[in-house]
Amino acid sequence: MTCLIIKSGSADAMQEWKSLFAQYAPDLRVAGWNDPDIHPQEVDFALVWEPDPGRLAQMTNLRAIISSGAGVDHITADPSWPRHVPLVRMGTDDATVQMGDYVTWAAFSLLRPTREWFLRQQRHEWHNDGQSARTSTQTCVGVMGLGNLGTHVARRLAQAGFAVRGWSRGPKDVAGVECFHGAGQRQEFLARTDILVSLLPATDETRGMINRDLLSCLRAPAGLISVGRGTQVVEEDVLSCLDRGILSGAVMDVFAVEPLPVTSPLWAHPRVIVTSHVAAEASRAARARYTADVIASVMKGHPLKLLYLPERGY
Amino acid sequence: MTCLIIKSGSADAMQEWKSLFAQYAPDLRVAGWNDPDIHPQEVDFALVWEPDPGRLAQMTNLRAIISSGAGVDHITADPSWPRHVPLVRMGTDDATVQMGDYVTWAAFSLLRPTREWFLRQQRHEWHNDGQSARTSTQTCVGVMGLGNLGTHVARRLAQAGFAVRGWSRGPKDVAGVECFHGAGQRQEFLARTDILVSLLPATDETRGMINRDLLSCLRAPAGLISVGRGTQVVEEDVLSCLDRGILSGAVMDVFAVEPLPVTSPLWAHPRVIVTSHVAAEASRAARARYTADVIASVMKGHPLKLLYLPERGY
Repeated sequence: MTCLIIKSGSADAMQEWKSLFAQYAPDLRVAGWNDPDIHPQEVDFALVWEPDPGRLAQMTNLRAIISSGAGVDHITADPSWPRHVPLVRMGTDDATVQMGDYVTWAAFSLLRPTREWFLRQQRHEWHNDGQSARTSTQTCVGVMGLGNLGTHVARRLAQAGFAVRGWSRGPKDVAGVECFHGAGQRQEFLARTDILVSLLPATDETRGMINRDLLSCLRAPAGLISVGRGTQVVEEDVLSCLDRGILSGAVMDVFAVEPLPVTSPLWAHPRVIVTSHVAAEASRAARARYTADVIASVMKGHPLKLLYLPERGY
Repeated sequence: MTCLIIKSGSADAMQEWKSLFAQYAPDLRVAGWNDPDIHPQEVDFALVWEPDPGRLAQMTNLRAIISSGAGVDHITADPSWPRHVPLVRMGTDDATVQMGDYVTWAAFSLLRPTREWFLRQQRHEWHNDGQSARTSTQTCVGVMGLGNLGTHVARRLAQAGFAVRGWSRGPKDVAGVECFHGAGQRQEFLARTDILVSLLPATDETRGMINRDLLSCLRAPAGLISVGRGTQVVEEDVLSCLDRGILSGAVMDVFAVEPLPVTSPLWAHPRVIVTSHVAAEASRAARARYTADVIASVMKGHPLKLLYLPERGY
């Protein structure tokens, strides 16, 4: 019997996973990560989030590893992860729409002084200075990273009324979005961007990419939306750019260290909105359905989508 | 020489108005509301916000009154306002786009627990319960009032990803929006609405319309977005509906009394976002351009748009 092992969510989550797979893949044997009845060699598939280093390497008959989130950096961080096994990124429609919703909310939140509005509400302070507002139609949002999430986000922002440009490693073509690619076009991409969205994968190449040099190329004062993974963004540089007028505000959902330490100056900054890595939260039902589809594709020998490619690192 | 009198903004604003009209209507004589050199009978046009009762009636040669905002209730509240003079509502493209931006922001703000996110940030509290998020595509926004603002807002929400329905006094047709009208279809409109947008004009007919009875017809727990004017919304009923689970949250920009009194329980409610009547703030430049166009239309005898009609009250 085909066996799927799961490490994703708390111990309580296993009951839900089991009943979901009973529905979507009734022939599957589903086991928890520390199930004593399962021998590593019996495992055919693994659905994982932050697997303990070394464990996947013991599963010598693995046919595919499925990441329980959009990134795979939490798996490839294990030096012994089995590189010969196909590694598939999570890509539910649910999470994609949620990411589009979150980034659209964040872009509108940076258009007006919404963080200031909240702080004034805390003080029960009415304040209307009659200042004219910046509009979406006057604002250019630039999306870095045009994978399945970035492409959806860029399209959604364009539909919501923003001028949108995108940047990616290699050339891409997205309807309604002005596309740039490679190091050569990065400067041009940044120069007319008012709000930057970071949706890059977490790779060696992207680590620390959103730093003071890059932020200084934006049309100041600019907004920053940090989603996906936090390692790309140099948090000290965000703070210094806010203080120097290079940035006017930031909405940050991901951080170099999570949970964001209680001592981080980002929490209290009057122009930073902090959320707790909540941008895209696909339901377990959606992830179970997706995983069942991946397993079915492997069994039938069909090609896999959202497959990790070592040469690009995601 | 054609004379325009202005009451809109502080005394400081007059310098800006004068230089703007020098640009858009150089042949116009522009005077402040309390300019001692102007005799009331010399005034041809009045651009006003909350004019002192009785003053407009003294201007016996008025050819048009232009409201400095979208509503005219602040003018018609004067029992002696000259009803034979055409009264024109402000309708700049700027303010329309800003209202679309604000309501779209508000709708996305009600999709996720953003007020709770903000309150957690105040406490430096990381919280990710892994709960699945509601998406825009699963959410139906209902817009009450399909005038020039409401129609634009409904279209923008549909483009941004929401299912959208609209309700108006008389029948309307808006592309991409399911339209309902009149008292007879109100129940049907409300029954499948998850987030209600109030963009009704302030008239005798709409006063107190958004009350507990109406809110109880929404698909609970629902969100409420109150923009335009505050007299339609019964604030005590909003609070009791929040506490009874009929509403899950509200974004309110307008209130029965403005500034919202510091003692109002809305300020501190954990599920209410309060802003200070900032949704649409057209620049003085845009309003001056619009006013110059209205004046030119009157001079040439062209028909006027956004004209107040006494039989409908806006």
